[in-house]
Amino acid sequence: MIFRQLFEASSSTYTYLVACQEQGIVALIDPVLETVERDLEIIRQLDLKLNYTIDTHIHADHLTSATKLKALTDCKIVYPKQANLPCADFQIEDGKVFRIGSIELHPLFTPGHTDHHYAYLINQGPQQMVFTGDALLIDACGRTDFQSGDASQLYDSIQEKLFSLPGETLVYPAHDYAGHHVTSIAQEKARNPRLGNDTPKEEFVTIMNGLDLPYPRKIDFAVPGNEACGVCPPNVPDYLRSPCEVHDQG
Amino acid sequence: MIFRQLFEASSSTYTYLVACQEQGIVALIDPVLETVERDLEIIRQLDLKLNYTIDTHIHADHLTSATKLKALTDCKIVYPKQANLPCADFQIEDGKVFRIGSIELHPLFTPGHTDHHYAYLINQGPQQMVFTGDALLIDACGRTDFQSGDASQLYDSIQEKLFSLPGETLVYPAHDYAGHHVTSIAQEKARNPRLGNDTPKEEFVTIMNGLDLPYPRKIDFAVPGNEACGVCPPNVPDYLRSPCEVHDQG
Repeated sequence: MIFRQLFEASSSTYTYLVACQEQGIVALIDPVLETVERDLEIIRQLDLKLNYTIDTHIHADHLTSATKLKALTDCKIVYPKQANLPCADFQIEDGKVFRIGSIELHPLFTPGHTDHHYAYLINQGPQQMVFTGDALLIDACGRTDFQSGDASQLYDSIQEKLFSLPGETLVYPAHDYAGHHVTSIAQEKARNPRLGNDTPKEEFVTIMNGLDLPYPRKIDFAVPGNEACGVCPPNVPDYLRSPCEVHDQG
Repeated sequence: MIFRQLFEASSSTYTYLVACQEQGIVALIDPVLETVERDLEIIRQLDLKLNYTIDTHIHADHLTSATKLKALTDCKIVYPKQANLPCADFQIEDGKVFRIGSIELHPLFTPGHTDHHYAYLINQGPQQMVFTGDALLIDACGRTDFQSGDASQLYDSIQEKLFSLPGETLVYPAHDYAGHHVTSIAQEKARNPRLGNDTPKEEFVTIMNGLDLPYPRKIDFAVPGNEACGVCPPNVPDYLRSPCEVHDQG
């Protein structure tokens, strides 16, 4: 298995490359429109081709590059079943393994940040690794105040699906805003300031409902754009036009 | 490969269990006197036996359980060659692989915290993992003001031996005082406040020489005790007598 952690600075998004070297199968988890060329160049350097884009959920803070990558590489687009997107080639479902060559991706339905959110677990190597999307972040968690978010549901998802994993399980989130790259289930269970150290659900819900966060600056075009698997909608602002135009030509 | 990250609270020390399941060979990296029973119980639960204790250096902040574990299990004691300890059964040397069954431990000579300090690299699984002892810590590094420490040498060790590893390499330190469990080479290169983000050597040396840290409270008995691979010296204080007495009986 080949693994790369890649970062897109304008949305502070981590994209993960997971590849089965043996069978030459490559997946990108949560790829971003701005970094298509970088991501394809990394795959070229590995002498491989892209097979799948796999999103954890319909993002509100960036445009996925799923459709653009499909146009450029003929890869397949993978989305959670609950997102119900006609543009997806494959649907992820809890309990049904998705194979990246010989690598087994175990989908964990973890709603709360959105109502269709998934985490993806890989049990390869001495520590398991889980891609937690926007459910569990390092010392934080995803917000729950839009896109059918629900703090109580997020608490249950994290406690039941993530904190039940072995302590050494590596946690790779979809975002970090302070330069952290990786954490473990044991660390988040112990010191996550929102729901670690046995924080009761009521306290977590109060914290989440009191965050008073600003309106997400990209949500109005990112959500409809991502509902089409990353097609640039007409109202995309100028600073994102450039990757969109490349897409339009592709 | 089986991997466990274990914590001893009084000295904030991480002990790592690394085992080759196939061949039934178990090593403990930096085991601590207070947690002998816990560590042996974990190994029993895995239905395995301890084969090696491997220290990264002669610690000043806790007593190693190497000798006690040897008395209880007949394991072998492994130490850096440069520590020159007659009590060691095997000596670690830079560039010479040490095998834990089929697992290859690559010793990286990383002096600076002490003049004989080693990090240990394992290239197993999709991300390499490096046990950095007291050289590189999470958002920090080991102090350099005793035991032949040298800030300039530590800078070179970290830059040349550790920061040259692939960014995804997992960093498992011997200590953390804030509940962090794991970091990556990419994270420390980018944001380690002492020598990340291309900090020049001169600036690092100035930071290290200006730390003004308190005299280590265990150093006067821990260093001579660890120079005997973890024999309790006569001047050990009461709060450590209990594990010492168990040892004396063992």
